[in-house]
Amino acid sequence: MKIIKTATYEEMSEATVNILLSHMSQEKRVNLSITAGNSPKRTYEMLIPKVKNKSYYENVHYYNFDEVPVEGQEIGVTMSALNEAYFEPAAIDPANIHPMTTENYQAFPKEIADAGGLDVMLIGIGADGHFCANMPGTTQFHEASYRIDLTQEVDEPWYQEVKKDLKTDSFVTLGAKSLMRVRHLVLIANGKGKAEILKQALTGPVTPAIPSSILQLHPNFTVITDAEAGALLND
Amino acid sequence: MKIIKTATYEEMSEATVNILLSHMSQEKRVNLSITAGNSPKRTYEMLIPKVKNKSYYENVHYYNFDEVPVEGQEIGVTMSALNEAYFEPAAIDPANIHPMTTENYQAFPKEIADAGGLDVMLIGIGADGHFCANMPGTTQFHEASYRIDLTQEVDEPWYQEVKKDLKTDSFVTLGAKSLMRVRHLVLIANGKGKAEILKQALTGPVTPAIPSSILQLHPNFTVITDAEAGALLND
Amino acid sequence: MKIIKTATYEEMSEATVNILLSHMSQEKRVNLSITAGNSPKRTYEMLIPKVKNKSYYENVHYYNFDEVPVEGQEIGVTMSALNEAYFEPAAIDPANIHPMTTENYQAFPKEIADAGGLDVMLIGIGADGHFCANMPGTTQFHEASYRIDLTQEVDEPWYQEVKKDLKTDSFVTLGAKSLMRVRHLVLIANGKGKAEILKQALTGPVTPAIPSSILQLHPNFTVITDAEAGALLND
Amino acid sequence: MKIIKTATYEEMSEATVNILLSHMSQEKRVNLSITAGNSPKRTYEMLIPKVKNKSYYENVHYYNFDEVPVEGQEIGVTMSALNEAYFEPAAIDPANIHPMTTENYQAFPKEIADAGGLDVMLIGIGADGHFCANMPGTTQFHEASYRIDLTQEVDEPWYQEVKKDLKTDSFVTLGAKSLMRVRHLVLIANGKGKAEILKQALTGPVTPAIPSSILQLHPNFTVITDAEAGALLND
Repeated sequence: MKIIKTATYEEMSEATVNILLSHMSQEKRVNLSITAGNSPKRTYEMLIPKVKNKSYYENVHYYNFDEVPVEGQEIGVTMSALNEAYFEPAAIDPANIHPMTTENYQAFPKEIADAGGLDVMLIGIGADGHFCANMPGTTQFHEASYRIDLTQEVDEPWYQEVKKDLKTDSFVTLGAKSLMRVRHLVLIANGKGKAEILKQALTGPVTPAIPSSILQLHPNFTVITDAEAGALLND
Repeated sequence: MKIIKTATYEEMSEATVNILLSHMSQEKRVNLSITAGNSPKRTYEMLIPKVKNKSYYENVHYYNFDEVPVEGQEIGVTMSALNEAYFEPAAIDPANIHPMTTENYQAFPKEIADAGGLDVMLIGIGADGHFCANMPGTTQFHEASYRIDLTQEVDEPWYQEVKKDLKTDSFVTLGAKSLMRVRHLVLIANGKGKAEILKQALTGPVTPAIPSSILQLHPNFTVITDAEAGALLND
Repeated sequence: MKIIKTATYEEMSEATVNILLSHMSQEKRVNLSITAGNSPKRTYEMLIPKVKNKSYYENVHYYNFDEVPVEGQEIGVTMSALNEAYFEPAAIDPANIHPMTTENYQAFPKEIADAGGLDVMLIGIGADGHFCANMPGTTQFHEASYRIDLTQEVDEPWYQEVKKDLKTDSFVTLGAKSLMRVRHLVLIANGKGKAEILKQALTGPVTPAIPSSILQLHPNFTVITDAEAGALLND
Repeated sequence: MKIIKTATYEEMSEATVNILLSHMSQEKRVNLSITAGNSPKRTYEMLIPKVKNKSYYENVHYYNFDEVPVEGQEIGVTMSALNEAYFEPAAIDPANIHPMTTENYQAFPKEIADAGGLDVMLIGIGADGHFCANMPGTTQFHEASYRIDLTQEVDEPWYQEVKKDLKTDSFVTLGAKSLMRVRHLVLIANGKGKAEILKQALTGPVTPAIPSSILQLHPNFTVITDAEAGALLND
C-alpha cells in the first residue's frame, strides 16, 4: 500500500488524473473501472479536456464496478452518474463502455478477464467502510461478483437509506476477489469525514464489518488523500 | 483460482515440478519460496536431479516463508527441513538461500520486494486450514510478516502440539499480505485427510478461523491435488 | 536470454512441456502460439495425454503464427500440420483455436492484443536463421504481421524450395514486433544441423540476414536445446 | 507504440510528468532511468516541486543510461547534467541514485535486474536518430550495455563534435537489449528539428543507421511529441 497524502482536494485530484492518464497512455487495450460519487468530481473535470476527442485514447475501455437498477429505466444509478460526470462530457464512444447490470453481473468478471483484465480501478470509500457496493453486513470477500438481496432487512444504517432513496430490491457489485486482480487499485478520499474510517480500514484488522479493510492485501494499491482525510494516517 | 485435480500423488508432484521448473527457466533473477512438510517430498525428489549442478538455474534464489527457532541451534525447524529435503541434495549454493528468522522477519518482506518480489511460492495446507504459519486463532491477514507469541495459551489444538513438540516461545511467518504479492501461488494437497478442509478453504467464506480461506482472493493461484484431496471440489 | 542445454531430444521436449503446462495452469485465459515442424513432435506427444479431456485446461486458446495457403483448400499448411500433430489428438475445442490466414493477418495482432496478448509462443529455428515465416531476404522487423509476396523472385535458397513444394503466391507471418510482446518466448532446437545457426543467431549481431538474431532482444526468451544443437553455445 | 501528439512543449511535458508520477506512486521499489538534455527541462521543472521532500516517493531509485567520462572529474557528463537538472533541486537522496560509469557498465544490467528491473525509462531522440548513446555507426543492438571506443575515427558527424567538445576516449551506454526490458519506455520529442527523424525512426525499417528505429519493437512504448515534432506522424 502506498499512501499519498496531498494537501488539498485539488492536489488529490491532480495526482489521480496523473495515474489514470499514465495507464491510458499505453499502446495496448487499457481497461479502466471508475467510480461515481463526489470524491472524483474534480478528477473528471480535469480529465475531460485531456481525453475528449483525443484519438490516441481510443484504446481505453470502461467498466463500472457496481450498479443499482432503477425501476422503469434501462440505465442504473451508477451508469447514469458516470454518464453525466464523465462519459458524456468526455465524448467516450459507447462501444468502449461496458456496463455491468443485474442481468450480466455473474458473467462480468470473465468478460473482464477475457479482455485482458482491469488495468486500473478508481474507487472511493464510504464513511461506513464500504467499497464499491461491498457493504457492512452483506460483504462476501470470496465472490468475484454478487447480488445483494434487499428484500430481507440488513441491520446496518445504509440499508434504511437505500430503501428510502432507491426503489430497488437488489444491487450488484464486483467483490474483493475481482479487485485483487486489478493491476493498479487507486482509492481516493477527501474531507474530515473520511479520516477515521481510513485509519481503521488501512491499518486495522481485516474484517467484513469494515469491507475496505480487505484492500490492505492488494498487491498494488495506492491511496490518495487530501490533508483532512489523511490526518490520522502515518506518512 | 485454478484447480488441477490429478489422479495420484505422483501426478500431483509432476504438475508441481512443471510449474517450478518453468518459472526457473527465465533469464531474470527468479525468487522462489518453498515449503517443507510431507506433501512436497516427491516433488523435491523429482526436482533434485533436474536442478543439481545445472548452471542455468543459478539465477534462482530461495526464501522460506516461516520459521520456528530451535533452542541452542542456529538453524530453525523449517530451514533444517528444507536443507535436508532439497537444498543439500540439490547442491543449492548457500548464497542463493535467504533464510527468514525470528531476528529478521520484520525486514524480510522489504528484502524480498527489493530483490524483485517472489515469482512462485509453493505451500501446503494444514488439516486445520493453516497455511505457512498462519494458524487458526492467531492469524492476522493484514500483516506482511509477523511473530506469533506462544507464551500466552491459544485455545486451538495446534497450540498444545507445538508446545509439546517444540521448545519455543514464538514462531514467525509471512502473512496473507505478502502472499497476495507472489506472482504465482501454488498450493498442493494430497490424501483423504485434506479433502474436507480444501472444500471449506476454497469454496467457503473468508475467515481467520480457516486461515487459508483468504487465498481464494489471490490473483494467480493454482491448486494441485491428487484424487483424494480433491474429491469434494468441483472440476 | 536463458539457454537450457539439455542432453537429449527427450529432455529438450520434457523441458518444453514443463513450460507450456505451467503457463496453462493459471486461472486466466491463457493464449499460446505453437509451432508446427519436426522439433516439437515429441513435445506434443508428451503434452497430448496431459491435456486431452482435461477440463482444467479449457482456459487455453491457441494461435498459429504463420500460414501458407493451399490452393483449393480452406486450411493452410501450418494449421493442417498443427491439427494433425496436436489439436486433433489432444481434442482441443475448435472454439479455442484461432487461425491466422491470408485474409485476416493484418487484424490478427489486434485480435491477440484484445484477448490479453500471447502468454507463450513456442518456435523453432531454420538452418537459414528464419523464425516463423520471417525469412532471409524478406524479413521486416518493424511489422506486427505481414504478407510475403512470392510472385517476385527472392534470391535466397528457401525461395526455390517453396516455389517447388508449395503452389502459392504468398504466405503470412507474425513479425518481430509481435514476438517482442509475447510474455515468454520459447525456442527449441535439436540436432547438429542447428548448432552453427544457433550460435550466429544468439550471439552475433542483429541482422535481417539472420532473422532470428533479433530474438536476442526479447525481454523473456528461453532457448532449449539438445546437446548437439547447443554444442557451440556457452553454458 | 502509442503516439501522443500534444499541441505544445508545455503539454508534452505535462503528459510526461503524469507518466513518471504514476509509476512512482506504487508501493514497490520503483526504478526509473531518466534523460539529460533539453527536451526534459520543463518536465523536471514541473516534477521537482511534486517530488521534493515527499517521503512517499522514497521508494524511487534512479539510474542513468549512458555516461561520458570527464578527465580529472569523478562525475561524468550525464550525471553532472542530471544532478543539476533534477537530482539536486529535487533533493533526491544519493542512496537512491545509481550511476553507471565506464567502470561498472558491464555489470550494470545485472544490477538493474537484481533490483527488479527498470519500471520506466525516459529518453530523447537525436536528430541523427540516436537514443541514449547508441549512435549511428557504432550501435550494437544485441548488447545490454557496451563501451564505444573513440580512439578510432567513426565516419559520422557526431564523432567530430564529440571529439571537439569532450576530451574522452570512450563513452558507455545501455543498449537496445536493455531497453526492451524496461516496463514502460517513454520517448519525448519537441520542435521542428525532430519531425523528420521521428517519422523515419518510428515508421521506417529497423536499421542500425537509425538506431532508434529498433524502439518500434518495444512491447510498451509511448512517444510524446509537441505539434512540431509530431507533424509528420499519423494520429
